[in-house]
Amino acid sequence: MQALVTEDMARVNETILARMHSPVALIPQLAGHLIASGGKRLRPMLTLAGARLIGYEGTRHTKLAACVEFIHTATLLHDDVVDDSDLRRGKDSANVLWGNKPSVLVGDFLFSRAFELMVEDGSLKVLRLLSHASSVIAEGEVLQLSISNDLETPEESYLQVIEAKTAALFEAATQIAAVVGERPENEEVALASFGRNFGIAFQLVDDALDYSAHQATLGKSVGDDFREGKITLPVILAYRRGSEDERDFWKRTIEDMDQKDGDLGHALALMDKHGAITDTIERARHYGAIARDALAIFQDSKTRQLLNDIVRFCVERAY
Amino acid sequence: MQALVTEDMARVNETILARMHSPVALIPQLAGHLIASGGKRLRPMLTLAGARLIGYEGTRHTKLAACVEFIHTATLLHDDVVDDSDLRRGKDSANVLWGNKPSVLVGDFLFSRAFELMVEDGSLKVLRLLSHASSVIAEGEVLQLSISNDLETPEESYLQVIEAKTAALFEAATQIAAVVGERPENEEVALASFGRNFGIAFQLVDDALDYSAHQATLGKSVGDDFREGKITLPVILAYRRGSEDERDFWKRTIEDMDQKDGDLGHALALMDKHGAITDTIERARHYGAIARDALAIFQDSKTRQLLNDIVRFCVERAY
Repeated sequence: MQALVTEDMARVNETILARMHSPVALIPQLAGHLIASGGKRLRPMLTLAGARLIGYEGTRHTKLAACVEFIHTATLLHDDVVDDSDLRRGKDSANVLWGNKPSVLVGDFLFSRAFELMVEDGSLKVLRLLSHASSVIAEGEVLQLSISNDLETPEESYLQVIEAKTAALFEAATQIAAVVGERPENEEVALASFGRNFGIAFQLVDDALDYSAHQATLGKSVGDDFREGKITLPVILAYRRGSEDERDFWKRTIEDMDQKDGDLGHALALMDKHGAITDTIERARHYGAIARDALAIFQDSKTRQLLNDIVRFCVERAY
Repeated sequence: MQALVTEDMARVNETILARMHSPVALIPQLAGHLIASGGKRLRPMLTLAGARLIGYEGTRHTKLAACVEFIHTATLLHDDVVDDSDLRRGKDSANVLWGNKPSVLVGDFLFSRAFELMVEDGSLKVLRLLSHASSVIAEGEVLQLSISNDLETPEESYLQVIEAKTAALFEAATQIAAVVGERPENEEVALASFGRNFGIAFQLVDDALDYSAHQATLGKSVGDDFREGKITLPVILAYRRGSEDERDFWKRTIEDMDQKDGDLGHALALMDKHGAITDTIERARHYGAIARDALAIFQDSKTRQLLNDIVRFCVERAY
């Protein structure tokens, strides 16, 4: 997929570099650290691939893909502050290197810059989609905070959180491709549905991988979510399916945040016992299937196959 | 002035309350705490008064005034996190009551919501002005961070900071009144100039008042900026005009942040000795005069007089 959109992505990267510039040196330094640190550029790639799928031949999509990446980067910067994270993409996170203050403010800058770029593009519809996605993301992050350390969180609330904090931007990223291409309603709906369902699958897998040894090879630490007492589906399932004793373990470690050496190992064993990881990936597989079926209205093409493959790859990487 | 725009302001408040709503209860709770806590609503008032000045008779200005207040509130929430402030408008600040995390995220929410409101209004020009103002504000905040605790900061850099973090939003708030009223270029320029220069004067006075006993009566604590080691004009002037011994005092307290009982009192005495507060207010008077002259192209009216009075009042309140 990356090969298919290489040229477009080079233009996205140019826009990103040009537009994160500021005479205030700390801004490009900090933003550059994160943006250049080998992110997958998954969200802008969705915009580019969506544009290619519908045969769009203009140039607006690369600028808008850069907006999507700016919004994503802004939320990462704020997330790392909110989560007190130490690592991001295998490197020290910006809040560790520069402190929380610049991370908050540079996030604000990138976010504003994204809107400036959209205004330059001039489509009110794109502005509506991305401003709405942004407020949904923030709402989702606050909701996530409200349920933090609460083991009684129903699966539905968890789903609501990931729909908001992850899927909303995936959805907008693919939908705007149809908007710039001025495609009929049904294609816009299909691309939006692809993005949303892929986003849910992606986050489910991400949350599963946080409890998987694979993580270490991706430059992420295993068990970050556990140490933060984050309520993700693996924990929800292991807790609900657990015995009284097991639930006491989860209450001590996740609710009371009283964690000792060996607790992460025990948590992994309990998850394994109850199939919590496997079933989280099963849920991801469900949404992945919906995403792929959403694209069925488009003629078969290399791009469609590749979009399908990327969803499949996302789910498979968990094995 | 408040009487003159009472009805419009009631509509602004309705919009604010309706649009800060969210099913995630923490959002309206936290936002409501700040928004309802007796802020002056100075920035939205500037939009309303500007609209009245140019004889605008539509209804768009109240919604856009609410956007301006949302952007301002978002920056206050992030500011208090960045500054570790305990008080805001005489009450515990949101970061003290709810912690830093929700303050960052609810700020993001209000910011996104502001853009959603602007998109509903539908003017790309307004969107351009306010998205630009937002990125200038963030840039200014980062610049302020870069010069923090640096006593060698030239007055020009300080001015750059307050132009960005305060005056840019004042400017946009008044300018959009001319935009919705579809007034000729010269009126738009005049209103923008009024806002910008008033904003600079306002911040200068604010920074002077932080070292003034008046503060206590306004529900703010005296010497917050001193305790944070913030570089504002009173400190810049007192340091530059000080003796070698005095400069050592400033270096210890502001650069090394090594503060003891009695240091604030000594700082106030040094400022008094060198006229640092009086001259900060003199600088404010200069910008206030430019702001008032900018309005000279408009026919004399009750609104124009009141806009002039508010600038005069802002500077006079420092005495």
